[in-house]
Amino acid sequence: MLKVIFDTDPGVDDAMALLYLHRHPGIDLVGVTTVFGNAPIEITTRNAQYLHQQWKIEAPIAKGAGRAFDDGRDAAHFAPIVHGEDGLGNIGVPLDVDHPIDERSAAQFIIDTVRADPGNVTLVAVGRMTNLALALKADPEIAALVKDVVIMGGAFDVNGNVTPAGEANIHGDPEAADVVFTASWKVTIIGLDVTLKTTMSSDYLAKMVEAGPSELRLLSDLSQYYIDFYRQRVGLDGMALHDSCACVYLTEPHLFEVRTGPVRVVCGGLADGKTIQAPDHGRKYVGSAWDGVPSQLVCTGIQPDAILEAIRAVLVEGRTP
Amino acid sequence: MLKVIFDTDPGVDDAMALLYLHRHPGIDLVGVTTVFGNAPIEITTRNAQYLHQQWKIEAPIAKGAGRAFDDGRDAAHFAPIVHGEDGLGNIGVPLDVDHPIDERSAAQFIIDTVRADPGNVTLVAVGRMTNLALALKADPEIAALVKDVVIMGGAFDVNGNVTPAGEANIHGDPEAADVVFTASWKVTIIGLDVTLKTTMSSDYLAKMVEAGPSELRLLSDLSQYYIDFYRQRVGLDGMALHDSCACVYLTEPHLFEVRTGPVRVVCGGLADGKTIQAPDHGRKYVGSAWDGVPSQLVCTGIQPDAILEAIRAVLVEGRTP
Repeated sequence: MLKVIFDTDPGVDDAMALLYLHRHPGIDLVGVTTVFGNAPIEITTRNAQYLHQQWKIEAPIAKGAGRAFDDGRDAAHFAPIVHGEDGLGNIGVPLDVDHPIDERSAAQFIIDTVRADPGNVTLVAVGRMTNLALALKADPEIAALVKDVVIMGGAFDVNGNVTPAGEANIHGDPEAADVVFTASWKVTIIGLDVTLKTTMSSDYLAKMVEAGPSELRLLSDLSQYYIDFYRQRVGLDGMALHDSCACVYLTEPHLFEVRTGPVRVVCGGLADGKTIQAPDHGRKYVGSAWDGVPSQLVCTGIQPDAILEAIRAVLVEGRTP
Repeated sequence: MLKVIFDTDPGVDDAMALLYLHRHPGIDLVGVTTVFGNAPIEITTRNAQYLHQQWKIEAPIAKGAGRAFDDGRDAAHFAPIVHGEDGLGNIGVPLDVDHPIDERSAAQFIIDTVRADPGNVTLVAVGRMTNLALALKADPEIAALVKDVVIMGGAFDVNGNVTPAGEANIHGDPEAADVVFTASWKVTIIGLDVTLKTTMSSDYLAKMVEAGPSELRLLSDLSQYYIDFYRQRVGLDGMALHDSCACVYLTEPHLFEVRTGPVRVVCGGLADGKTIQAPDHGRKYVGSAWDGVPSQLVCTGIQPDAILEAIRAVLVEGRTP
């Protein structure tokens, strides 16, 4: 069983990814850490509690960062137009949810969990990278103790979704992302280059609900607002499965093409939050800011139909394809 | 006949582009303006004189900028590793060349020539954008009087060639490029996205020399160093025809795919010189630095074989394909 900590800001596509991790027979969800992003930290944490309660998920929840890694950065911008005011498609989540919260901060929870089982815990982060950066800052040695880091974020050879340069998870805390990408651990980065190619139509979702367990009813309900956003604002007939793509990568990496090379994040200015890789196999640059930075894996290709089937198989049948 | 001012920093691929414009039966080369870039301004200007003398080109030469548009920018970096110490592949260009130079600055020459024939002069700029920015600053009205602007520069959905972010012509004077791209004239931008797909092998060049006029002997001689650079440093079996691609666009635009949308240039920081377009047909961004900026055309696709044939037909046979 692959032990996973899921760092998340639910968030509609976060909800699907959470259910995927919960139902995946090869994954042991050992903790969920929350972060601000799609909505403020109080709301994303409450949403994690709500989803755990509704779906009977037992993994502990630790509340994480509510502001950016750097004190100077104003990061109080959220995405109600995408995820609804409540972060879950305006389905009417109760203001208070009676579900336990771990006493530790998300960063401390990550540190403790990784140190308790060195080499065996994978971090999957699908919101802003703040908690991971805080964990690295508090305990740099965890970089060597984590099994793998898989993140959803960034836009390399394509435009961003907040600005023409910046993707939301990175743009929301660029300094944190730069800390995470330049640390000495292996990060696989699943960004808009591939996630925008992987959309699920409302028909496909409806058929899953019909065929699958009762949990899918809630997933479908909270996704409708998000589907409308993609139809009306992005012109896609279906919703992007950003966060689930990162989760599918955990056990199905063969469905992705990757490019290796150091990655840096632009902090400030016109291109704030832009992710730029210097590919290992390509032109050699002299004296650049990428020198001496560890290589990471950036996903540049994906098999969308196979990804959809992998998600369907786990959500509907509780098995891998 | 299409009237063209060629703004250039010869430069090996500049030399081929100059000969292409000179021999093209549909193009009237009404002036050549020099700019620093591949080498310092004294050298690029001397090289323009030398090529005019050797190839009996009668178009006037006006000497242009030797430093960046913004006083604060240190732009004294050149590319001897690509173009040789003399900017023309170390073929031994004489220190002084006896060939006339216009008394005006490049910017003034552009202004005067455009104003003398409003609506009919196209600017083709294949070096740093400094001269064009200076002309716009001195006489903003020329934006409405120029027929078209076609430039070689930028890297949109691909890495740069100076840094992972920046392409040489833009990275060498980002502020100037941002002035040029955000002015109210039509700019077509031919960048690394397409020029790196368009390479000419040494065999192809050798066959052209065999079949063509005597001018091609000099072109071949000065290209050998550049071909070696691409073989050894970039891993390409052939030389990139950056500047010639922009010239072919003038009469053969059907060989290119373009994407419309405002373009901004990152000035400073990690992504210094990065070009970023907000495509007109795509996601709508709210309150970005691209708002209110005129749409420009960015080339995203090219037909390399047809481009090579267009160049061959003009250089060897003096006709269009």
